[in-house]
Amino acid sequence: MTMINAFDADAADGVTARDRALIERRARLLGPAYRLFYANPVHLVRGEGVWLYDADGEAYLDVYNNVASVGHCHPHVVAALSRQAATLNTHTRYLTDGILDYAERLLATLPDDLAQVMFTCTGSEANDLAYRAARAFTGGTGVIVTQLAYHGVTIAISELSPSLGDGIAIPAQVRTVPAPDAYRAKNADVGESFAAQVRAAIADMTAHGIKPAALLVDTIFSSDGVFADPTGFLAPAVAAIREAGGLFIADEVQPGFGRTGSGMWGFARHGVVPDIVTMGKPMGNGHPMAAMVARPDILDAFGRRTRYFNTFGGNPVSCAVGMAVLDVIEQEALIANARDVGAYMSDGLRALAQRHEIIGDVRGAGLFIGVELVRDRATKAPATAETARLVNGLRDKRVLISAAGPFANVLKIRPPLVFSRGHADRFLSAMDEVLGSL
Amino acid sequence: MTMINAFDADAADGVTARDRALIERRARLLGPAYRLFYANPVHLVRGEGVWLYDADGEAYLDVYNNVASVGHCHPHVVAALSRQAATLNTHTRYLTDGILDYAERLLATLPDDLAQVMFTCTGSEANDLAYRAARAFTGGTGVIVTQLAYHGVTIAISELSPSLGDGIAIPAQVRTVPAPDAYRAKNADVGESFAAQVRAAIADMTAHGIKPAALLVDTIFSSDGVFADPTGFLAPAVAAIREAGGLFIADEVQPGFGRTGSGMWGFARHGVVPDIVTMGKPMGNGHPMAAMVARPDILDAFGRRTRYFNTFGGNPVSCAVGMAVLDVIEQEALIANARDVGAYMSDGLRALAQRHEIIGDVRGAGLFIGVELVRDRATKAPATAETARLVNGLRDKRVLISAAGPFANVLKIRPPLVFSRGHADRFLSAMDEVLGSL
Repeated sequence: MTMINAFDADAADGVTARDRALIERRARLLGPAYRLFYANPVHLVRGEGVWLYDADGEAYLDVYNNVASVGHCHPHVVAALSRQAATLNTHTRYLTDGILDYAERLLATLPDDLAQVMFTCTGSEANDLAYRAARAFTGGTGVIVTQLAYHGVTIAISELSPSLGDGIAIPAQVRTVPAPDAYRAKNADVGESFAAQVRAAIADMTAHGIKPAALLVDTIFSSDGVFADPTGFLAPAVAAIREAGGLFIADEVQPGFGRTGSGMWGFARHGVVPDIVTMGKPMGNGHPMAAMVARPDILDAFGRRTRYFNTFGGNPVSCAVGMAVLDVIEQEALIANARDVGAYMSDGLRALAQRHEIIGDVRGAGLFIGVELVRDRATKAPATAETARLVNGLRDKRVLISAAGPFANVLKIRPPLVFSRGHADRFLSAMDEVLGSL
Repeated sequence: MTMINAFDADAADGVTARDRALIERRARLLGPAYRLFYANPVHLVRGEGVWLYDADGEAYLDVYNNVASVGHCHPHVVAALSRQAATLNTHTRYLTDGILDYAERLLATLPDDLAQVMFTCTGSEANDLAYRAARAFTGGTGVIVTQLAYHGVTIAISELSPSLGDGIAIPAQVRTVPAPDAYRAKNADVGESFAAQVRAAIADMTAHGIKPAALLVDTIFSSDGVFADPTGFLAPAVAAIREAGGLFIADEVQPGFGRTGSGMWGFARHGVVPDIVTMGKPMGNGHPMAAMVARPDILDAFGRRTRYFNTFGGNPVSCAVGMAVLDVIEQEALIANARDVGAYMSDGLRALAQRHEIIGDVRGAGLFIGVELVRDRATKAPATAETARLVNGLRDKRVLISAAGPFANVLKIRPPLVFSRGHADRFLSAMDEVLGSL
């Protein structure tokens, strides 16, 4: 959520009169909460595969948008959406077949213990529901998140999302722990040191009379700066929260649906089975849909005691779209592609690091890659301003990307999963050029 | 949200083996939070206009589903959805035209002061955002809602939704007031008595050191039992909250988009201009979209201080769908139709009341009608069990409807707005038959 490359009207350069009029209209109609990417924002009119097209017909290589995960406007997904929208779209208090077929297929991608699913429309709603379920099941209220976590925008979940900044007061029952940063860690064992922080947070909760409900993490720590390795590092922290009576909630909104290249879910890289899994963004390739998957005993404790009805959640159109997305992931072998092209791209970035001192670290999994830019490899001083220049420079070369992390100096590379080696070459060559001109 | 006609496996009667298998599969895959309507749930496969079709091809007259407000699977809306989904679907940090065109057209239906809009995916998210904005603007936290209010399912908004039942603890900063029930009121002046309750709630908040942020009401009081008259009754309560420094938030998720037959918005019947308006359900005719509209000074206070980004909210597909829904409301003159057919249906229901003692009251506006069933017109003893039998009896005559209110004895009549006098005749004749057999 870090807006290192936010449009700033006073500093804007090269913005056409037409786009400036659009920007003014936006400010008038939508207000100040709507921020734009880039010093020179991009005016989009069309998308296809890994490409986005602006109003002048220029093509932009999309290296950033993880929502359109099987490719912008994928025809198989659009066809399923159109067909079902013309047939039936209603809520879940009638019997319909699609929701059950989709639930069955989705659950088959998850460990056996995670046997039930509840559908929502957004990842925020899924995390909000997971928090409610965890509280109902454990009787606790305490939650541990990372220092720059982002889990969503509802009131309750924004309070678990310190990356939203100073506008959000983190409440008494929430504890933040440093992200498991293997690049900047003094301690060699990231897993043990992360678990130690979680144990300390639990101890502090207990000292304040707060019963732990959950450890909630994005299993690739996207907003914290992308931390994927070593695989398995989450296991001791998961053991710690369970020992304290809390649940482990894996937020798969970012790493889920095959992006990490080793399977459908980010948590699997850590050899753990979560108590609750939340998912969203790529689930419908842009159609508003999300879900919470959980152990049946957790949903039993929650569902018998509390009513929950989501008007649009799990509707026939969303389920048809979700099914089509799973079709494409399978038929186009996108997990293998994420692994292959991800490795190819990471190798290419490491090769660039040979020539560009500013690249301090290349990390991630599959097609979720973080590139940390530093002014000095020894001190690891963050190259924040340079990162903003790089992001805007890539935009001018018609390559779309953004950055994250506490110093906004970590490039977030997460293109649609249909990205090819050829696309990677094009991205790497643009990177090379812009890095050379910084 | 009252589930008077929830499926109960132990009491189920007439359910086919095929549907029973589906119900068991649902329970296994989705868990206990997913409730079904009717003793004999309906298995739907298709929708068109005011009709829903089951797996055997039987047609059901839809008198209940206010989401598919311009008619199930309306071809103009489906075409807009399909076309835009095949063209571009991305988030709001790029410039796109559709969101601005839609925002402009939507805002033109609202009073001039309500000049800015923020898009979300669900009414719950819209109310959650409105609550955040009201807190940011007023510096208060206190909220007043009605005793059986329903505003959504996020953690924060479920705490403002006492109709969700005992599973929800209403927090210290929330006050509930009795619904403005003109049918059961001892006092003749509903507006003054409602305002007196609001003033008392404010005084109690103040006594407890809680600063009021908002009065939040569904302007047709759907879950409370449908209270629409006399028009204007909300004005004194709105004055009271403003005098105390709080905002008036009109939840238009249920009455909005022309259903009341007198204009686009329910609040207009009361001659008040809200500070914030939330909308959802019928906005996309089933597509997951919702919004909060507010005065710019409120969004200024909120948006400058807090980041808010909704991944799917205001995406090009949602905006195209929203635009198509507004097209249909205009082109098919659905507001006038809601007024005309609503009045026709209310007259018909009052005629039925001549012959069926159990009908205690017929009320509402346009195509949002409440029919309160009582055992005795003098004592107004609620006919709760009879209402459940009526709802299930209508289902067996292939007419879909439900009920609300503290005693679950108020029929909620809110068909798609393309409902005709002929459809009303069919509904009234089914009502007559089932009432006669109770």
